[in-house]
Amino acid sequence: MGRSKAKSKGRPTAAKIEELAASVVELAAKRREPSMGIPLRTLSNAKYNKTKRIIEMGAARQDREFFKLGMAKSFMQTMLIASGCKQLIDEGKSVSIRGLYYRTKHTIAGTQEKTFNDQQESDPIIEDLEVAIGALREELHVFASTRGTIVGNLTIVSQGDTIDLRRMGAGGFGIPSICEPDVLGFKKCEADFVLHVEKDTVWQRFNEDKFWKKHNCVLTHGNGQPPRGVRRLLYRLHEELKLPVYVLLDNDPWGYYIYSVIKQGSINLAFESKRMAVPDAKFIGVRSGDFEQFKLPDDVKIGVDDKDVKRAKQILDYPWFEGKKEWKKEVDTMLKHGFKMEVESMMTKSISFVTETYLPHKLKHPGEWLD
Amino acid sequence: MGRSKAKSKGRPTAAKIEELAASVVELAAKRREPSMGIPLRTLSNAKYNKTKRIIEMGAARQDREFFKLGMAKSFMQTMLIASGCKQLIDEGKSVSIRGLYYRTKHTIAGTQEKTFNDQQESDPIIEDLEVAIGALREELHVFASTRGTIVGNLTIVSQGDTIDLRRMGAGGFGIPSICEPDVLGFKKCEADFVLHVEKDTVWQRFNEDKFWKKHNCVLTHGNGQPPRGVRRLLYRLHEELKLPVYVLLDNDPWGYYIYSVIKQGSINLAFESKRMAVPDAKFIGVRSGDFEQFKLPDDVKIGVDDKDVKRAKQILDYPWFEGKKEWKKEVDTMLKHGFKMEVESMMTKSISFVTETYLPHKLKHPGEWLD
Repeated sequence: MGRSKAKSKGRPTAAKIEELAASVVELAAKRREPSMGIPLRTLSNAKYNKTKRIIEMGAARQDREFFKLGMAKSFMQTMLIASGCKQLIDEGKSVSIRGLYYRTKHTIAGTQEKTFNDQQESDPIIEDLEVAIGALREELHVFASTRGTIVGNLTIVSQGDTIDLRRMGAGGFGIPSICEPDVLGFKKCEADFVLHVEKDTVWQRFNEDKFWKKHNCVLTHGNGQPPRGVRRLLYRLHEELKLPVYVLLDNDPWGYYIYSVIKQGSINLAFESKRMAVPDAKFIGVRSGDFEQFKLPDDVKIGVDDKDVKRAKQILDYPWFEGKKEWKKEVDTMLKHGFKMEVESMMTKSISFVTETYLPHKLKHPGEWLD
Repeated sequence: MGRSKAKSKGRPTAAKIEELAASVVELAAKRREPSMGIPLRTLSNAKYNKTKRIIEMGAARQDREFFKLGMAKSFMQTMLIASGCKQLIDEGKSVSIRGLYYRTKHTIAGTQEKTFNDQQESDPIIEDLEVAIGALREELHVFASTRGTIVGNLTIVSQGDTIDLRRMGAGGFGIPSICEPDVLGFKKCEADFVLHVEKDTVWQRFNEDKFWKKHNCVLTHGNGQPPRGVRRLLYRLHEELKLPVYVLLDNDPWGYYIYSVIKQGSINLAFESKRMAVPDAKFIGVRSGDFEQFKLPDDVKIGVDDKDVKRAKQILDYPWFEGKKEWKKEVDTMLKHGFKMEVESMMTKSISFVTETYLPHKLKHPGEWLD
């Protein structure tokens, strides 16, 4: 089921790996230098696409050549990782990035040299392979740690199991690290939107108050900056089920950054934006103006320090915040206030203020959201 | 449902808080110094109970007095936290430890003084209250972050939902931070044992291979050192369902320590051992001798450093490792080897070596387990 079906579904990716290998073999057969082109995953090669409203990878590439002293090792490592992934796809299994490190690590015959000395060497090679052949890590059957939970008015199918996310009690469904359609499918959806919150403790408040039931939504969190699985799931909820995505984050530079990653994608994973970013996502709170608007007490205030100021200005300088006057005003208000606020601080009003007063108000007033 | 029922179920704890308050009022009425006795949560007051095989808190107490200059603030804080928890119980709601910090933080009238300056001040007061009135944090309706997932041949009931842990697909049920019987109840259990693994990536390997189905067990992880909710759940699976608990951890001092916490409890939370520790838990692997026994390649080796050596010796010095010759031999072998091993390193053999060869072998040979 699910993953074993992936054996056949994984064929296009396996074919891409075979192609990469064949091109190297061909060069060697012609007695030419074996090499492969690796797109550059650098800030300078990450571009904001104004039309699609996502961060994309540019066209800059570097040739990784087997006969260049400084490149021979990384060339060999890329081949090893490619071969390891090919085997995973063939066997219909997936492993963690640490697992793949162990799978591809060995001592080179006749030497004391290891193929990889530690995982810091293999992780970037996995990303190189992703961009080189244009396949997501998930399609290479490699996963990272899980983080994040979902619950709400939605039924999903995973590995043959039908799972009713309306009946998860105090827990929730742990979002898998691989959220591709063959691992996680959608069945009956009655929800009107997705509410994504930053932290699991806030998620628990919303789940305990059964907010998703009263407001007919799907409730997710990603424990801070959401991992790839959570981002991919948000994308699919939006694209396939046409659910608007509303994001509730802390009123601080870290919150802005998380929003920016959910909405436009990240610089480091620019090549994945088109399958993970949700440019239509809305920032529903916490806004600086909420302090006055909801008459919050001084106890919610957390002083802004130099690092916050610097980070906030950096974020405003991102091309994707360009021309967004509302965001500029938002950040300026925070800096003028001289304090930031966490979602949890709203408990100073009352335990369920955030679920019973704050968010219902925000849902009724889209004019108060940020884009 | 569940938590709202807690309103009545929380009465014994509420009564204990009322008692604490009444005793202070009584002292004041008699014109005597208001004070309360707080048991000491220190290493010197943590004792290993050889009969029960758990770490317990000793009898040492400190009187927290209102009219002592150095104690007046913590006295006031203890009362505030107690009052905050009483309100949570009355309303049948629960909040995070950060939430309780916000709930009880305010500026003292007529001064610039805050009741709490940060969460570092309120967290220990919550623990003080737990030991002072003999109630678990969970009974005070306060929770920490969640971490950990469960799946397997077991049906649970949570907040009115019946949840079949056999049908969780690629995900799993996120273990709630509060795992008291009113939040999480057991229904149909067909499992023969609990397999608890250290990391979520290992858990994913076991879940993908449907190990729990083939070997009829319940599969849990706690993302490193398991949080209170996971420990409480392991305890209840063992006590209420009579399931043996087998633990699969890395072969390193951190793995030994995690095992020690699951089995005997921790020094810091000694007062909770009796409701969280599983003295019958068994360490099923990874053992130092596995390197030779399973002919593992050199690539699994991670060099031991000075910190590892020091930590390993510290752990052997714990009274609860006293007289455990097998453990002494185990640690000595690791130190003699000069390397440690992770569960994931077994992937150097083959992707599913750990689920198809290693663990099935270990399950058949209890003589190879450590106690």
